[in-house]
Amino acid sequence: MTTTTGDLSRFSINQMTVKQLSMPELVGACVELGVPGVGLWREPVQSYGLEATAKLVRDAGLAVTTLCRGGFFTAIDPEERARALDDNRRAVDEAATLGTDTLVLVSGGLPAGSKDLHGARERIADALAELGPYAAGRGVRLAIEPLHPMYASDRCVVSTLAQALDLAERFPADQVGVTVDTYHIWWDDHAPAQIARAGAGGRIHTFQLADWTTPLPEGVLNGRGQIGDGAIDMREWKSYVEAAGYSGPIEVELFNDGLWARDGREVLAETAARFREHAA
Amino acid sequence: MTTTTGDLSRFSINQMTVKQLSMPELVGACVELGVPGVGLWREPVQSYGLEATAKLVRDAGLAVTTLCRGGFFTAIDPEERARALDDNRRAVDEAATLGTDTLVLVSGGLPAGSKDLHGARERIADALAELGPYAAGRGVRLAIEPLHPMYASDRCVVSTLAQALDLAERFPADQVGVTVDTYHIWWDDHAPAQIARAGAGGRIHTFQLADWTTPLPEGVLNGRGQIGDGAIDMREWKSYVEAAGYSGPIEVELFNDGLWARDGREVLAETAARFREHAA
Repeated sequence: MTTTTGDLSRFSINQMTVKQLSMPELVGACVELGVPGVGLWREPVQSYGLEATAKLVRDAGLAVTTLCRGGFFTAIDPEERARALDDNRRAVDEAATLGTDTLVLVSGGLPAGSKDLHGARERIADALAELGPYAAGRGVRLAIEPLHPMYASDRCVVSTLAQALDLAERFPADQVGVTVDTYHIWWDDHAPAQIARAGAGGRIHTFQLADWTTPLPEGVLNGRGQIGDGAIDMREWKSYVEAAGYSGPIEVELFNDGLWARDGREVLAETAARFREHAA
Repeated sequence: MTTTTGDLSRFSINQMTVKQLSMPELVGACVELGVPGVGLWREPVQSYGLEATAKLVRDAGLAVTTLCRGGFFTAIDPEERARALDDNRRAVDEAATLGTDTLVLVSGGLPAGSKDLHGARERIADALAELGPYAAGRGVRLAIEPLHPMYASDRCVVSTLAQALDLAERFPADQVGVTVDTYHIWWDDHAPAQIARAGAGGRIHTFQLADWTTPLPEGVLNGRGQIGDGAIDMREWKSYVEAAGYSGPIEVELFNDGLWARDGREVLAETAARFREHAA
């Protein structure tokens, strides 16, 4: 296989795509394949050690494009809300230590027994009002990720870019913006206009790719398709974010049992090749 | 169990909810439980016989609130498109014979290998231009059903009420309107305004209920929750369609492996009771 650095210059591999790799294996494979950026997750970072991870990626010359993930702001119970805010402040600190300016937020689902989507979305705004200034003070931007509407009850009550921007625009752009992930928004004919809205406000804080493949697996969490395997035209969505002024890293983030069962370095090489074919 | 006719006066049972019942069992159970309406499906109607079904429901005094379903208009191949139109004309004829004024349309997914949602939606419009006048001439209205965005690639490229109305409004309201089904739109904060838009145009051709429960099963087709078991506030959505001027039947349409494994008459009785508790 041949890769050229130029083609991959905007590529970032989200760690979840190859979660079977240890942190040193991931970093080593990125260096070897010419992958310039990684999106990290809190749990493996904490497991390897925050300072040790920061040194590892820094010494390897890798950019940390995002940290995933903060959020889960929809609880009603005051103690639960306070714990979530504390945990999100720690996530901001971890992002700063890792040298990334972007913390991805998955906002949380409905509390048990609740049917009140509107109220849950308002509680997210309340949390952002506290967390945004804290993050900006440490050079970290919060990136609200709308998740596909199939996650609205149990993972994320923010289902569209329009909803995410309605929340984000209550705050300065250096505090709160959005995550644009093809997997979650590809079906939405209003999404291109919302990408333009986000770009005009300087709120596209990260751009992520995953393809849409069916049938969806039970629980619908780990069926995100490899780039090029599904229904999404990656160049089309890339053209929308570029027309909106975004020229930053492009992360590939796949949750996929099939990919996780394979050799992680091989999956990383395949993902880089698919990125070059469909998005570079 | 006690039921009063008044409480169930707007209730209709979609046949799919209790598909384990034969046509005479279904009709008999409706009469016994005081259920005044049924939504029928083409396959069981054809299996029992079109004329025989029409006589059975007519003699029992049941209203046929909808026939499910036409559609599947997204093919590119001309012969395949011609076959689909022929089949939809037959569906219109069947609806007229059964005495219902509403044919529910599931528009179809992306053709194999296609990533062009916009083109697929335009082909639906082309088909409606042919089918709409045919249907209106027989007293049948087409009701475009937006399906949840999780079905956008493989079942229905129409994912929101706004998209459905963008299509429907190209035609007279007595030809083309929409199906409002809580399961597919509950996550959408723009849906209440779109219901108002639909009502203002006289385009709410049917209103259906199903609840949103998780985890979703593999394939995400047969996990629609019994009314009251999930995240959707049925009275809230009922209030939206009523404010928009809809006072017609309310169908409960559940695809659920758990319900199908039980005694069908018991499921029908339970569904009627849930309707009375959560929607009457």
